[in-house]
Amino acid sequence: MHEFELIKNYFQKLSKKSPSALNLNDDVFFDKKNRLAVSVDTYVEGNHFIDFQKPELVIKKIIRSSISDLICKGVLPKYYFVSGSGNKKSFSKSNLSKISKSLNREQNRYNILLGGGDTVFSNKLSFTITSIGFSKDIIYRNKGKVNDDIYVSGNLGDSYLGLLVLQKKIKLNNILNKYFTTQYFMPDIKLELANELKNFANTSIDISDGLLADLDKLINNQKLSYKLNLKNIPISNNLKKVLKLKNLSKINFISRGDDYQVLFTASKVKAGIIKRISSRLGVKITKIGIIQNKPLKSLIIDHNNAVITLKNKGYLHKF
Amino acid sequence: MHEFELIKNYFQKLSKKSPSALNLNDDVFFDKKNRLAVSVDTYVEGNHFIDFQKPELVIKKIIRSSISDLICKGVLPKYYFVSGSGNKKSFSKSNLSKISKSLNREQNRYNILLGGGDTVFSNKLSFTITSIGFSKDIIYRNKGKVNDDIYVSGNLGDSYLGLLVLQKKIKLNNILNKYFTTQYFMPDIKLELANELKNFANTSIDISDGLLADLDKLINNQKLSYKLNLKNIPISNNLKKVLKLKNLSKINFISRGDDYQVLFTASKVKAGIIKRISSRLGVKITKIGIIQNKPLKSLIIDHNNAVITLKNKGYLHKF
Repeated sequence: MHEFELIKNYFQKLSKKSPSALNLNDDVFFDKKNRLAVSVDTYVEGNHFIDFQKPELVIKKIIRSSISDLICKGVLPKYYFVSGSGNKKSFSKSNLSKISKSLNREQNRYNILLGGGDTVFSNKLSFTITSIGFSKDIIYRNKGKVNDDIYVSGNLGDSYLGLLVLQKKIKLNNILNKYFTTQYFMPDIKLELANELKNFANTSIDISDGLLADLDKLINNQKLSYKLNLKNIPISNNLKKVLKLKNLSKINFISRGDDYQVLFTASKVKAGIIKRISSRLGVKITKIGIIQNKPLKSLIIDHNNAVITLKNKGYLHKF
Repeated sequence: MHEFELIKNYFQKLSKKSPSALNLNDDVFFDKKNRLAVSVDTYVEGNHFIDFQKPELVIKKIIRSSISDLICKGVLPKYYFVSGSGNKKSFSKSNLSKISKSLNREQNRYNILLGGGDTVFSNKLSFTITSIGFSKDIIYRNKGKVNDDIYVSGNLGDSYLGLLVLQKKIKLNNILNKYFTTQYFMPDIKLELANELKNFANTSIDISDGLLADLDKLINNQKLSYKLNLKNIPISNNLKKVLKLKNLSKINFISRGDDYQVLFTASKVKAGIIKRISSRLGVKITKIGIIQNKPLKSLIIDHNNAVITLKNKGYLHKF
């Protein structure tokens, strides 16, 4: 069963009296009256992270992944709660010390504070992170409009290549290895955007499952589709270098997930303000396509205007 | 390592800039400015619940255990978030349907709403519940005063006997089996008290780890001790019956945890109002002892005024 079926069949009805749950079809919970935004995510060893050999890096990744959900909705994260399940080895003094130092650095970098949590014994290591922020309003899913431009922050694909390096599925020189694994463990999330997005975005989501999978989610209740230009999808110079070196296709790297960049749509008249804010913040924001009306199909075209067929749109949570 | 050492050594410093985290030494997080109270708890199969043969009952127990943390601080729970990790068997259609129905009943009973959550694949079953409520103020730990009376709501020990029945460590007739296992799975938490506690309680906690363990926690930063009268500690008629029948000692049943009753202290002048509110709500509230000054030792006395020595104060979370 896919996660969305599970939510639809068993849990949506439980949230129907609570408008704040947004029908369980958004990235966050938002109680407008109390100005409260909440995001809850669980990360399991072997699934969301490979192993716990570098606790300090795993912790950074999951904290950033969690607050990314708030940031992409235009909410500055304020508190986070960590609930960790693990055994004596996972929570050894040495590991706890690394986790604590790593959390401290993330707190300073993103101006967040530990609110609480829980620690329990389990032979399977997992963490649930609850992130909280306060905001008058948020940017919702399913608010894109026909002819909106589609934008993405930062670069895509670096994290996926980092994963391939860690899984020893690809071999690079030490400098590139370091670059990509760092991108995997420490996604370059765009805190600066949280306060600005509301000035131009109609709808937004962060890219955790993959560009196309998350774009589908962004408009999943609307009669809309998208058209993307592969050549405009931003990738790093290092990724360009590797694609060339190893004769790999860009299309196989831009929708693999774990990017934690902001994906949003905006009216064409906002192009100027987006350019100015991008430049002022020093945050790369790239126009990658447009929103269309159905029955036009969602598609992605290459530099010859040919439609690309994709086998894999990203990560689908399944049971 | 005990949980409190783990918190003290590795996590307290991360919360020091956040008064709302209450130094990670309370049952909840409370942001006074935003009127927000949060409780996060993780429940692992084989540790916090025996197995998942009756998902509908396990879910009730963990939801009640979670909102109990808010209720005992004088906060009405409003939203809950469920993050479940499990495999295909745990989250089969039949189990999901039972979980959904059970959550629906709890929502109606306690006037709470599903806010969101997460579902992830893992071979080890666990749930993290985040409960949220809004309140102007809460009742804190470590605010007891010398000569305060110590009170407890409801009865203690039924849940522990239910656990013994489920573990097949004790055999009773069907009616008693049913009674105690029901008390184990569906603790009789006192939602009605949430709005009243602030009228009389100086300090409070819920009993999850055991009467004495939680009483120790309630005053753990104070130079205080307690004196309890065993004969006044409330137990059900059914438990009295079993103790007699099996020739068991009351003392071995009143501090085993999982009771989810409210434990609080109040000034002696509040005795009248407590009696009236107890009577009006139909909620049993029993005075079980008093708060003393150190160096007087914490102790519990039997009906002959003899001091009882206890081997086990309750459940200590350890790594």
